[in-house]
Amino acid sequence: MVNWFRRARERIEVPRLTPRSEQRPTARVDLAELTPSLSAYLGHAAYLQLSFFETLSRATAIAPTLEAKEVLARVAGRALEKHRKLVIELERRELDPVQAMEPFAAGVHEFQRVTRGNDWYETLVSCYVTAGFLDDFFVRLGAGLSGEAGARAVAILRQDLEAKELVDLVLDAVGANPRLSSRLAMWGRRLVGDTMLIARSALVLGSDHDTEEARIEPVFTELIASHTRRMDNLGLTA
Amino acid sequence: MVNWFRRARERIEVPRLTPRSEQRPTARVDLAELTPSLSAYLGHAAYLQLSFFETLSRATAIAPTLEAKEVLARVAGRALEKHRKLVIELERRELDPVQAMEPFAAGVHEFQRVTRGNDWYETLVSCYVTAGFLDDFFVRLGAGLSGEAGARAVAILRQDLEAKELVDLVLDAVGANPRLSSRLAMWGRRLVGDTMLIARSALVLGSDHDTEEARIEPVFTELIASHTRRMDNLGLTA
Repeated sequence: MVNWFRRARERIEVPRLTPRSEQRPTARVDLAELTPSLSAYLGHAAYLQLSFFETLSRATAIAPTLEAKEVLARVAGRALEKHRKLVIELERRELDPVQAMEPFAAGVHEFQRVTRGNDWYETLVSCYVTAGFLDDFFVRLGAGLSGEAGARAVAILRQDLEAKELVDLVLDAVGANPRLSSRLAMWGRRLVGDTMLIARSALVLGSDHDTEEARIEPVFTELIASHTRRMDNLGLTA
Repeated sequence: MVNWFRRARERIEVPRLTPRSEQRPTARVDLAELTPSLSAYLGHAAYLQLSFFETLSRATAIAPTLEAKEVLARVAGRALEKHRKLVIELERRELDPVQAMEPFAAGVHEFQRVTRGNDWYETLVSCYVTAGFLDDFFVRLGAGLSGEAGARAVAILRQDLEAKELVDLVLDAVGANPRLSSRLAMWGRRLVGDTMLIARSALVLGSDHDTEEARIEPVFTELIASHTRRMDNLGLTA
């Protein structure tokens, strides 16, 4: 397991640093110019949190042990809390939460469908990996929001799901059944594509395709580096 | 609809008042002598709240509209909060929550299975009706717990799920499709048997069968009167 951790860690350093230094001299790339309106941002993020809550609740209901149920119920509760807080931000601005979420419902449902996994273990990996990736992404995207409301939204999304015990559930399962690790590693790779797609769907893109891609690419390189770290935490090869 | 309300209300007064005055002179019957240990009480109640949370989350996931999803996510969150608070009470007394819940897991799972309903509407009715009944029951049962911990547990269970909007969802559905009301009324009646069974399973019964039944019966008569009021709120004949 130790060896494995090291191997995964070495991998990520390479793709992470190279494009960053080649393409942008600044230490931190951002998506400010591609940021949607506050209403769209909050609506999309709120609906995603609701979908994490739903997937985590489903994982709670089918958990094989009471210990696991307790862990997942707590994590589900935190996703719901993030959802609620984002909804409150919408209400503060006298925006109708349902109207703000509606445009993203179909996309999020489809994302939820393809990422929920074929068994409990895949669902756990999915919750940890996709929620982590998308929270990272929305925090980054939120840099383009102006004012206090934007800062509050970012602070909400930055709240950790405190999924340490969820990670332990996966580590234990993989420890008890090493063959599970290759299946879950594969599953983690499959998740990346769909997660990037839904993240991209939150960007406001214009017609200047090449400039935009040049801006987006290094951000995604960093997000994928964080994804690799998350897979690493789960004891899985990214 | 107004007529209907009146009819249902008339019904409940009769069985509620008669046995009370016949069998016990005091205004309030209680189950003090049949109360389990605090650990068993908290474990059973906590696991039931977790099962309400799971059923409400499932209803959230399959809700036909975003408005309904929002309502159910909130109610699910409140059931989870009650669960968490009861778990904290166990932890305060240095009791292991999982060990305290374990003896009730099989019974609660079976209860959950038979009461979750065959469609979304039945699930809604079930959540409102069974959680209401069992909260009432555990509040009553908690009168037999001594000390501050008992009072705190009762205060937690007394917390309303604030399911007013859930009730509106059922009223709207029945209003839009009156044929639904006879099916849901029937479903509500079926729920009573299983709900009473799981409530009874929380009582510590001895060998003095007749005395115990005489003590239990008026309590259940009152609980059923409250159940009838709940069905009434849903616009359904009890």
